[in-house]
Amino acid sequence: MRTLITVDQNASTPLTQQVYNAWRHGILQQRFFGGQRVPSSRELAQSLGIARSTVTTAYEQLIAEGYLVTKQGAGTFVCSNLPMHNLPKRRATLATRSRALAPAIPLSDFGRQLQSDNHIRPQPKGWIDFSHWDPDLTQFPFALWKQLLQQQLRRLGGSNNPLLLDYSSHAAGYWPLRCEVAKYLARTRAVVCKPEQVLITNGSQQGLDLTARVLLNANDKVLIENPCYSGARQVFAATGAKLLPAAIDEQGLRCDYSGKDVRLLFVTPSHQFPLGVSMSLARRLELLHYAKQRNTVIVEDDYDSEFRYHGPPLPALQGLSDDVAIVYCGTFSKVMFPALRIGYLVVPDSLVPVLTQAKWLADRYTPLLEQAALTEFMAAGHLERHVRRMRKLYGARREALVTAFQQHFGAAAVISGIDAGMHALVQLKDNMLLARAEQAKVKLRPAAQSYLGKAPPHQYLFGFSSLSERVIKEGIKRIG
Amino acid sequence: MRTLITVDQNASTPLTQQVYNAWRHGILQQRFFGGQRVPSSRELAQSLGIARSTVTTAYEQLIAEGYLVTKQGAGTFVCSNLPMHNLPKRRATLATRSRALAPAIPLSDFGRQLQSDNHIRPQPKGWIDFSHWDPDLTQFPFALWKQLLQQQLRRLGGSNNPLLLDYSSHAAGYWPLRCEVAKYLARTRAVVCKPEQVLITNGSQQGLDLTARVLLNANDKVLIENPCYSGARQVFAATGAKLLPAAIDEQGLRCDYSGKDVRLLFVTPSHQFPLGVSMSLARRLELLHYAKQRNTVIVEDDYDSEFRYHGPPLPALQGLSDDVAIVYCGTFSKVMFPALRIGYLVVPDSLVPVLTQAKWLADRYTPLLEQAALTEFMAAGHLERHVRRMRKLYGARREALVTAFQQHFGAAAVISGIDAGMHALVQLKDNMLLARAEQAKVKLRPAAQSYLGKAPPHQYLFGFSSLSERVIKEGIKRIG
Repeated sequence: MRTLITVDQNASTPLTQQVYNAWRHGILQQRFFGGQRVPSSRELAQSLGIARSTVTTAYEQLIAEGYLVTKQGAGTFVCSNLPMHNLPKRRATLATRSRALAPAIPLSDFGRQLQSDNHIRPQPKGWIDFSHWDPDLTQFPFALWKQLLQQQLRRLGGSNNPLLLDYSSHAAGYWPLRCEVAKYLARTRAVVCKPEQVLITNGSQQGLDLTARVLLNANDKVLIENPCYSGARQVFAATGAKLLPAAIDEQGLRCDYSGKDVRLLFVTPSHQFPLGVSMSLARRLELLHYAKQRNTVIVEDDYDSEFRYHGPPLPALQGLSDDVAIVYCGTFSKVMFPALRIGYLVVPDSLVPVLTQAKWLADRYTPLLEQAALTEFMAAGHLERHVRRMRKLYGARREALVTAFQQHFGAAAVISGIDAGMHALVQLKDNMLLARAEQAKVKLRPAAQSYLGKAPPHQYLFGFSSLSERVIKEGIKRIG
Repeated sequence: MRTLITVDQNASTPLTQQVYNAWRHGILQQRFFGGQRVPSSRELAQSLGIARSTVTTAYEQLIAEGYLVTKQGAGTFVCSNLPMHNLPKRRATLATRSRALAPAIPLSDFGRQLQSDNHIRPQPKGWIDFSHWDPDLTQFPFALWKQLLQQQLRRLGGSNNPLLLDYSSHAAGYWPLRCEVAKYLARTRAVVCKPEQVLITNGSQQGLDLTARVLLNANDKVLIENPCYSGARQVFAATGAKLLPAAIDEQGLRCDYSGKDVRLLFVTPSHQFPLGVSMSLARRLELLHYAKQRNTVIVEDDYDSEFRYHGPPLPALQGLSDDVAIVYCGTFSKVMFPALRIGYLVVPDSLVPVLTQAKWLADRYTPLLEQAALTEFMAAGHLERHVRRMRKLYGARREALVTAFQQHFGAAAVISGIDAGMHALVQLKDNMLLARAEQAKVKLRPAAQSYLGKAPPHQYLFGFSSLSERVIKEGIKRIG
């Protein structure tokens, strides 16, 4: 008998699997044809010199999957009604399929937009990176955080804590955390809300994304700050909305768009990203008036509000008005550590059900273990203690940055936007700076990418939160 | 001097805060007017009988926030250029704002659709709930899981594991987990992929949502199974795509839509949800041919493939073809526990960058601690061991359900779709069943809500995975 298939007794793949694979691939590659009789398990076992049960098991699977059929009394055959003509002939084995075969897959408008815009950048090694988003991870009380997680772990699976294990009603977030967040925001940001209005999200990015999807249709008008946090701009643009850039001056966002139909307005009043301006009270009241007149929803990203070095923190816009719809948004990843994917929205009552439902549809809910640990972290006052410590630390680094610029650049560097936050905006005059920084292994962040349209030249963001004073001095010296 | 404001020395609110609040509210409520002189800190402290520094601190904050202004040599005044006319007069205090004041906020088409469709249902207590999605949580090896999490926790924050702490390049998932998932799917589901093609998501729901957003524009045609998993239907509909229902017969999905322009096709070949059919090989090949002809992307939700009670598991559609674009999607929440929000997509090479970017934009990345613990759980073989154990346990419960129906309903109940999965489809004839079940405290799940358009009457899903054999028998007896 001609050997239809071969097996390798020394291979690591089990023999049953080898027999199965050989028939399956042979059929899919049309080496065998529909209606062709296959040898009996006894015959094949004999010719291959393997146990009959090995063949029987493989045959059973092939029959179950429809590759082979048994006809009572006649034997086993390759299934004859498989639409084989549909498959390409002489294809490579399944295991070695190549990239080249992948078809071109057309993307949605949203998808196309994403491809051209890559915001995931590897951190260069051995460089000094004036990152404007990284907190100093060496300063976070991880021992304490681990203890809290461990406490929650001990409860996990216990009969007294079914909450951490099932699907039920966590879409809006872990209730005790929602209560803590409401209290925290009332205390530190003068936000006025009930815990029911607090929704827990995977960082502020998800909060913005869900808000955009729930409120915006294609061609709706959205007023955004220009320059603007690109993560926000992208999620608004993703809905197909029209983005209208609004200028920033020393008082903050200027609502000088006179159209009537602005659906949504995005603003970072505490510490405008990236310019660092705090919006004045007068401008805040104007903004509320503007939004009220047009029934515009304000999305307030309370970015970097925790770290204020000069004067008391300005309370949130959200607490200033109760007749304008404000979606207030924040995150713990900047004040704690980025891998903690927990943020929050505070929304008007009427948006609670629809945003809860949107979160459920997006990914059900934010993982509960970390939410529970964070609840304890906040309730025991650790969060506020940590913020106070970091404010002091970052304040010293901010000083170091300013001093270093004065020393190495003098009047050639104009620093602004550093009453609060984790970065400074620096206006330079030097055309060669980027090239020199590249050579000196200093990673700079041009502000240009935050602008819609033309950006003023030579504006840079200098983050100071993740670098020691020594490294900050060294970095500015290198490029000076 | 007339007392402009009052404080309560016995209240728990600090006196500084009280002074600040009193002025702020008074100004916002227009009890005080722009340009009005405020008493000096010494005057006010005296009249209220409190320390001068208390008043000074409050004033400093009010000045910093723009409520008050100081004029050199003249004193302190209520700011005169606040656009107060914009604020409503005689408003309630900020703390007591009521729901009634919330404005009506128009929603996007997506948002409106969400409101009418509430899929978060509270679990009734004391009832027998034939839930078709809950695994038996009492059987999960939580002690082991905690150990693995604790191991990861010990590494957290250590200098040898910066990966768990920063933002860098985790958008596609934790690399070691992506490798484990690729191996696992190759071994158990004959999925053919490199780890680079595996993307980690927050459960399969997020995988479907991201896929839909990246591939579908409004009015694109999407072929979906009818009946269909509603979570999938919703995310496809959310893009504005047109849903074309395709019928299911005993061989699975029938591609009888003859149009040329189907962008995407959603299918659950392993265990059709909710009918429970396994798609035949012949039908699978037809489906691939259909998709190839039209350059249609197939989204394969390998739902419930782990639990097969009858015959060997059918390999995934994904492994059958390399010239059709298939997005393969699955989750660990059904085989482990729902609160573990980890699922995966396996996608063609060309979709990896855009889906990674979409994930980054949606919520950055899935929390890493659980991803790292899951990696160990899989690498040590615990996952497959657990699946084997549960398959045996669920198999016995499935038997109990069938037997109980035979006993209490006889020929009046036709059970199908139980070769695999966590539920049976039961066709009954009884018009009064829902009412009787309600009375007997048995929660039933009509299949009707999974249909687009008219549904056959009296079809129910009976989940058997989370109930003991005793409770299953009791439940069927109660409604019998």
